[in-house]
Parts: sequence; structure tokens; C-alpha cells
Amino acid sequence: MSIRAVVWGENVHEQTNQIVSDLYPTGIHGAIAQTLNAAGGITASTATLQEPDHGLTVDRLAETDVLLWWGHAAHGDVSDEVSQRVVEAVWSGMGFIALHSTHFAKPFKQLMGSACNLTWREAGERERLWVTSRNHPIAAGLPDHFSLEHEEMYGEPFGVPEPLETVFISWFQGGEVFRSGLTYKRGAGNVFYFRPGHETYPTYHDANIQTVLTNAVRWAHNPIARVLGVTDTPNVPVTQALEPISERGPRLHEDGEEGFK
Amino acid sequence: MSIRAVVWGENVHEQTNQIVSDLYPTGIHGAIAQTLNAAGGITASTATLQEPDHGLTVDRLAETDVLLWWGHAAHGDVSDEVSQRVVEAVWSGMGFIALHSTHFAKPFKQLMGSACNLTWREAGERERLWVTSRNHPIAAGLPDHFSLEHEEMYGEPFGVPEPLETVFISWFQGGEVFRSGLTYKRGAGNVFYFRPGHETYPTYHDANIQTVLTNAVRWAHNPIARVLGVTDTPNVPVTQALEPISERGPRLHEDGEEGFK
Amino acid sequence: MSIRAVVWGENVHEQTNQIVSDLYPTGIHGAIAQTLNAAGGITASTATLQEPDHGLTVDRLAETDVLLWWGHAAHGDVSDEVSQRVVEAVWSGMGFIALHSTHFAKPFKQLMGSACNLTWREAGERERLWVTSRNHPIAAGLPDHFSLEHEEMYGEPFGVPEPLETVFISWFQGGEVFRSGLTYKRGAGNVFYFRPGHETYPTYHDANIQTVLTNAVRWAHNPIARVLGVTDTPNVPVTQALEPISERGPRLHEDGEEGFK
Amino acid sequence: MSIRAVVWGENVHEQTNQIVSDLYPTGIHGAIAQTLNAAGGITASTATLQEPDHGLTVDRLAETDVLLWWGHAAHGDVSDEVSQRVVEAVWSGMGFIALHSTHFAKPFKQLMGSACNLTWREAGERERLWVTSRNHPIAAGLPDHFSLEHEEMYGEPFGVPEPLETVFISWFQGGEVFRSGLTYKRGAGNVFYFRPGHETYPTYHDANIQTVLTNAVRWAHNPIARVLGVTDTPNVPVTQALEPISERGPRLHEDGEEGFK
Repeated sequence: MSIRAVVWGENVHEQTNQIVSDLYPTGIHGAIAQTLNAAGGITASTATLQEPDHGLTVDRLAETDVLLWWGHAAHGDVSDEVSQRVVEAVWSGMGFIALHSTHFAKPFKQLMGSACNLTWREAGERERLWVTSRNHPIAAGLPDHFSLEHEEMYGEPFGVPEPLETVFISWFQGGEVFRSGLTYKRGAGNVFYFRPGHETYPTYHDANIQTVLTNAVRWAHNPIARVLGVTDTPNVPVTQALEPISERGPRLHEDGEEGFK
Repeated sequence: MSIRAVVWGENVHEQTNQIVSDLYPTGIHGAIAQTLNAAGGITASTATLQEPDHGLTVDRLAETDVLLWWGHAAHGDVSDEVSQRVVEAVWSGMGFIALHSTHFAKPFKQLMGSACNLTWREAGERERLWVTSRNHPIAAGLPDHFSLEHEEMYGEPFGVPEPLETVFISWFQGGEVFRSGLTYKRGAGNVFYFRPGHETYPTYHDANIQTVLTNAVRWAHNPIARVLGVTDTPNVPVTQALEPISERGPRLHEDGEEGFK
Repeated sequence: MSIRAVVWGENVHEQTNQIVSDLYPTGIHGAIAQTLNAAGGITASTATLQEPDHGLTVDRLAETDVLLWWGHAAHGDVSDEVSQRVVEAVWSGMGFIALHSTHFAKPFKQLMGSACNLTWREAGERERLWVTSRNHPIAAGLPDHFSLEHEEMYGEPFGVPEPLETVFISWFQGGEVFRSGLTYKRGAGNVFYFRPGHETYPTYHDANIQTVLTNAVRWAHNPIARVLGVTDTPNVPVTQALEPISERGPRLHEDGEEGFK
Repeated sequence: MSIRAVVWGENVHEQTNQIVSDLYPTGIHGAIAQTLNAAGGITASTATLQEPDHGLTVDRLAETDVLLWWGHAAHGDVSDEVSQRVVEAVWSGMGFIALHSTHFAKPFKQLMGSACNLTWREAGERERLWVTSRNHPIAAGLPDHFSLEHEEMYGEPFGVPEPLETVFISWFQGGEVFRSGLTYKRGAGNVFYFRPGHETYPTYHDANIQTVLTNAVRWAHNPIARVLGVTDTPNVPVTQALEPISERGPRLHEDGEEGFK
């Protein structure tokens, strides 16, 4: 069965900036969805900030295996409710791929629990990505390094928790480095941050970048049925203990009572 | 110089439940502060939910090396503003020790980025903690295992991210296990979760538990001056690039401009 | 295409102990291979200590996607050469699943870089495995916990490095706990340690255990072509540098020279 | 009490190469020991390949808190016995700091369990180290980045396991990047790999490098008494089980018997 990917696009600069709309006539989200649909085994659709619920209703997320997110200028316009909904979908098993300036998007910051800050420069300089984890599924089919002739610079220190694995590190012409591909897990959901993708450059038309995105969707996909009640905190009464025990000592709660939250 | 610890107590059941107030006449926070002050090299004070700013003003946090947190019944009464303030203090280098039911406290959940849920049973059963990382600083002076005759059970799966290190795992009489001591880092701040400490049992009077708390404060203390501007995202203009580069290609931003947030 | 698994068995107690040979007439390796072959998508064969090269020639390993290893009484009889060969195959991308007493097998100890010791007791006591990473691929199809009525006890502290993920933790009737399912990566190879499997008990006939083994083989399989020259340390001459540089300063080596090893 | 550091030097190029002996008249080990002794709170001595037991007798290691290791041309001349002795000292709690070309030293490879390979170029190019973990104890007192005008290049992919933390990443003038500061734990011992230090350049006279080395010694020091019997695998007889159990089922071993190794 096909992996169901949704590419979420902020869709602001595509509407307001000629350079961006010329590069990505169907939006960055449209370009990425097209790449994924051409890859085989993935069915990708799009969602945008401007739609009701930003296109991410409860029902839609329930049918999304992997959500890709690209935001930049309008992080503050994403509703807290939708952000929390996305986060809980990740905990229950939905994959989440955070692209470029999404480092400051609400759901990404919430999943990381850290500042997610960095240094930056928009000078169209050369970026070279190095694979630091050979044969990682996300690096399948890639050479040990590849370049993007024009990219925005992001520099360390990058305010994220230590990842499960560092898959890519970028070299920048101006002298910086950046951990460009990082994997995490939050609950049952796989999370991947991938750095490149400034909207004024043709990054998402680059073949290596397209390979990474396709690989990342496959890697992030958790085929197991979603965890139900992902925030539940069940009480296990004494009478249902796996080993026979007797209740002892003072207590605050009655059997089967809800805990405090 | 002494490590400045603040023990934050929710201070609810100590005021409303006779068992708890008998066990902890100065509050759980008071008992823990007393332990830390007796340990040597630590100066501990307390703060509670009921104080203005919950006792955690900007100035107070700026002078706190390590914050210990015990909450249970009133997580929802902690203001979002104070929780965010605590979280940013951690990012800048303040240590944070989350005790027992604090797994559901706002700042802890925010730092973890995950559901932090678990299973539980209040039956006064035996808990045995095993050291899984021998000679970890937090386990200094402890035997390979020790018991608490009466504790609340917390069971796996525990909804937290994979830790930097698993220091303790608990065995419960009723058949469960739990990762009871977990270390994390968020920004420059060291974070430790420690499971035991149900308010109706004398856990914080146990010598081994007191050793863990004292060790944890010393471990969590980062003596380096706090990171200033911990959420800053500085632009590095082309003219200040470390390696000589020329600006190329189209751009969205002017030199020195603020990025989007 | 089918995953090619090889189940390596020490095959000693199966030949010398009536209890073991009654439980596993075709050997522990035979029983596991049968399970894997019945699972779908996996083609499993066996290899044993007593064969030339212990059944693990260079050619055989080159065609092995995942190697499962069960050893106990005769770790010292495994040749250093074959152990090194297995280790290098893992680095190049072969999956490796270490079962039970394999914690002390040469290739496992070499891959871990640590003592791999533990405590133990052979009393046929109850073991209950808890899933600590919900919906981990290796836990697919399992309940949150399951039991084995008779098993050997292994207790913490377990002398292994912190894993990528802790997937299972065991509770033992006698009071111990153990990290029973741990994932690692060494080079391009996925490594999984799985605790249960004492030879005098019918553990490998248990349906949940069989599910774990099947899942683990699928998880450990890295479909990307093996890394060639996995220990190579290539010199990159100045003339082939990706960015134009000139040689400066004193040097020890000539262009293209082999480095020291 | 002072931290007892031993700086181990291969001491080959210092004797055979005029450039190296001019830079380091007392050896690289001598220069580093001088730095550490000047730092305060550290008492550093040296040991070299040419001494009996390479200067690392059992007694000496028992009194060593942190061992720094620099080797390059003569890794193969280090005896397996001394390497194993060093590794077991690390497991028992000795800190280990692997410098530069030590990536291929016997004890480091044994501790990592991986190929430890990389790419390299000796062209005296500029290296810039970026701090990726702000306020990490090893980065105390350092700016966010610093440069070495002349260094050997090491490039990714670096064949090491995912670290506990990535503290430094290097940018190279010729276009490569490298994870230059990595922390690990093996048993009770803290391990730090630090990249710079090619013998034909004055790297160990650089103030920032000296700060890193001093910080690293303090970080790696585990003040807890060494683990005794670090490879022991104790049997816990039924009669000494923490919870009352009865022996059941068939068994291979007698009570208190040694396990297989």
C-alpha cells in the first residue's frame, strides 16, 4: 500500500514574491508533492496555512502517514490547536519532516523542547552536504557529499537536542557548519529535520534533495496502526495487578480513579 | 562557591491531607531543601505555587543553579508564563530535576516534547531501583540496587524521548518496570527525571533517595555563566563572513534584518 | 526480494544435553530458521561452530543480509578471524542480532567495546518483558507486555554502551530488571540485542518471541548495497580538493600516500 | 585533590622528524602535560611507547584518573595486552581522551567497536572548529568558533558510533567537515575524541586547544572509586534472590557455578 504523505506549505512568499512564484509556480508544497508522487510507492497531497484548520483536520491527520512541513514567514499564524493536533499525531505514529525554516515552526519547537535557534545569512553561497551516517536509509543512493551552488547559510550552534542520529552536516562557503540532517523519535513518530530549502533558490528541483525527501518519507513512515489514546495514563487497580499484591499503606486515590493532569 | 538550589513545591496535599502534612510538616519542598542544605556545598531554598509568580521571578531564576520541581494535583494552576520562563532558564544553563508526578508538569512536558504518560497504581507496594549506569555521578555512593518498601507504581511504556542515559530502572512488586532515572540536555541545561516520591509515603526521608537528590543537584549544576539571548537567531552579514564571500542570487532579507519567528 | 538471514548456532548443548536436544531437535538455530522461513519475506539458513569457518566464509557473509547469533558454552572456540570477519560485515551493512548468552560472544563484545557483563540465575523463574518504545518496528504486533513462565534471570547492571533505543525491559520474579531489547548501529549495520533464550526452556517456541525475532530481522535489514572498502582511509590530494586550496606548511606524507594504520 | 592525568605519547616523529622535534622539544606528550600542569587542579605526567609496558603498568593505570593518548605512526607496535589493560581501566572508570590520529589506536578502536576510518589531506589548510553544544563543560571559556590556520584535514564520513554528544564540528578550507569533538561512555569511563593535533603544526601551543584539553580532563574525571571486578558476571543463587522464589524447571548450572565466558 502506498505511503500517504501530506506536504504542508505556508504558501506566503509563493503569493507575494515574484522570484519564489517563478521558481515554484504550484508552491514549494506543490513541487515537493510532485517529487514524491513521481518516486513510486508514495501518494502525496498538499495542505496550506490558508485553508480551514490549515488543511489539517483531525480526520486528515488520521489518514496521513507522513507530514512534511515548510514554513518561514508566518509561523505565528499557525493556530495552537492545529499545532498541538499535529504534535499528538506524531506521538501516535505519524512521521514528521521539518524542512529548512521550519526549525522555528510551532509543532517542531514543541516536539524538540528546545530553542531551535541558529545563525543565518542570505547570500546565495555554496553549501556542501556531507553524509555522516553511511548507508542510512535517508542517504540511500547519495554520494558521500553533494553541493547546492546557492543556499542560505544556517550556522551552529543549532539549538536542538542531541539527535538519535546525525545524517548530514553542511559546509558553507562563508565558513560555517551546520547539522543539516537530524533524526528524532517522539512517541511512536519518527521526526527528521532537513536544512536546505530557502525559497529564493531552486533547491527543491535538485535531484539529490529530491532523493533525500523521498528517502525521508519512506524512513519516517511507521506502518503500525496508530497508538490510540496516546496521552492516556491508565490506572491499574490492585485487583488487576499482574503479580498478586495486597494494598498497603495510605492512599490518595480510589481504584480506577483518574489521575491528576 | 555553593550551588544555589531552589526546591519548588506544589504545596497542595501538604495543606489538605493529614497523612502528607504529618510526613512532611514543612512540605515536601521543605524536606528536600533540608536534605540538600545538610549535604555540603549546596544552598537550598524553596518556592511554592501559592507565591506570586509561583516564587519563580525572572530575578530568582537568574540566581538559581538548579531547580527541583515536585507537582501533582495542580499542574494546571501553573501559569504558562512561569512555565516558559523556567524552560528558557533551562535552555540558558539552569539544571532541572523533575520529581515523581512532575512527569506531567508543564515545564517538564515542554522540555520533553512528548506525552510523558505512563501507567500507575497506588498500592503501597515494594519498589526496587537498579543502577543501570555504574558509577554515574548521580549514582555515587549507592549500592547496585536499593528498595522502597512502600511506593506508588509507575509502569512502562513511559512516554518520554530516549534519554542521554538511563541511570535507574525500577522493579515493582506487582509486575511492572519503569525507567526511573533518566538524563537529558536541553540547550545548556541538564535535566534529570527521578521517579520515586509519592506524597503519602516517607520516600524523601530515605537515605538512598537523599543521596540521589544530592548527587543529582551536583550533576545538574552547570557552572558556566548562563547563555545570554538564548533564543536569539543572529544574522551574519556577508561583510562579516568568516571567509570572504560575495553576495549572489536573489534574496528576501536586507543585511542585519531580523529573521521571521 | 527476500531478506537473506543466517542463523548461527553454537550447537553444543543440543548435542550434549538431553533436555536441550528434546526441546530443539534441529538445534536452536534450526528452530529459529524455521520460524523465520515461515514468516514470509525472509529466507533463513543456518551455520554452526563445527563447520569450516564456522559456516561463515567471506562469500557467505557477503550474501547475508542479517546474521542471528546464539552462543553460550563455546565463545572461546570461535576464531578471531571469523569474529573479525563478522564485525566488518556488520560495519559494511549486515544486520546482527545477538541472542541471550551471546552477550559474551566475541563479535558482540567487539561491536560493543564494553564488558557486556551482567548477573544471572538459572531458576526457571517468570520473566515479563515490557515494551518501552511503543510501535517500535521490533515490537510490531506485540502487547505492551508479555511473559515467559520459565527463564534464566539476567540482571542489571548490564555492561553495554547506552543504546540508540531501549525497546524492551524485563521484570524478573526474583526481583531483578534487565534491558532486554537494545538497538545499536555500528557503521552501516544495525545491531539488536535480545535477552531471552536459555537453552533448557522452550523460549524459541513462544509466539511473542517468534514475533520479535521476525520483526528484528526486518528491522536490521539494510537494503542498500554493502559499503565497499569499509576500513579504507582515503587520502584526498590537494589537487582534488573540492575547494581550491594551496599546500602550505611542513608535511609528513606525499600525495596519495597510504596513511599510518 | 588533584586529578591525576597521564599523557601517553607515541614519541616516534618527535625523534625522527626535525620539524616535529623543533615544535615539541619535550614531545607532544611533554607539551600537553606542561599545559595540564599549568592549568590548576591537575597533576600530569607522561608515558611513551618505548618504555616497558609502554609506561602503562597495571599499577600506574590504577592511579590514573584520566589518560590522554596521542599515536600515529606506530599503532601496530602497541601490545594487545597493554591495549586491553587500558580498555578495562576505562570500563572501571578511568577517563580516556583520544587525540587526532589516535582514531586508529588499538584501545580507541576497541572502545568504539567500529572502523574509525575517515578521509584525510595534509595541506596545512585552515580548520575552524564550531561549538555545537553551548556551555558544554568541554567548551567552557571558548567562543562559539575558533580557527587553526594550519591543520591536517580529516573528513566525513567518520566511522564511529553515534556519540552521546557532538561538542565540536570542524570546517575545512578545502571543503570538508568533521565531527571533531565527540563524547562517549564505556562502562564507568568517560571517553572524548578530539580531532586537531597534526604533529607538524603548532596545534598544541594554541590557547583554545589548551583550553579544550584542560576542560576535557576535568570532564572525563570520574571521582568515584574504580569499579572492582569490572568484567565479573556474578551468579545470584536462588537462596539469595531478593524476592522469594523456588527453583523450577531443568538447569545447566549448579548454584554458585561460574558462567561460560
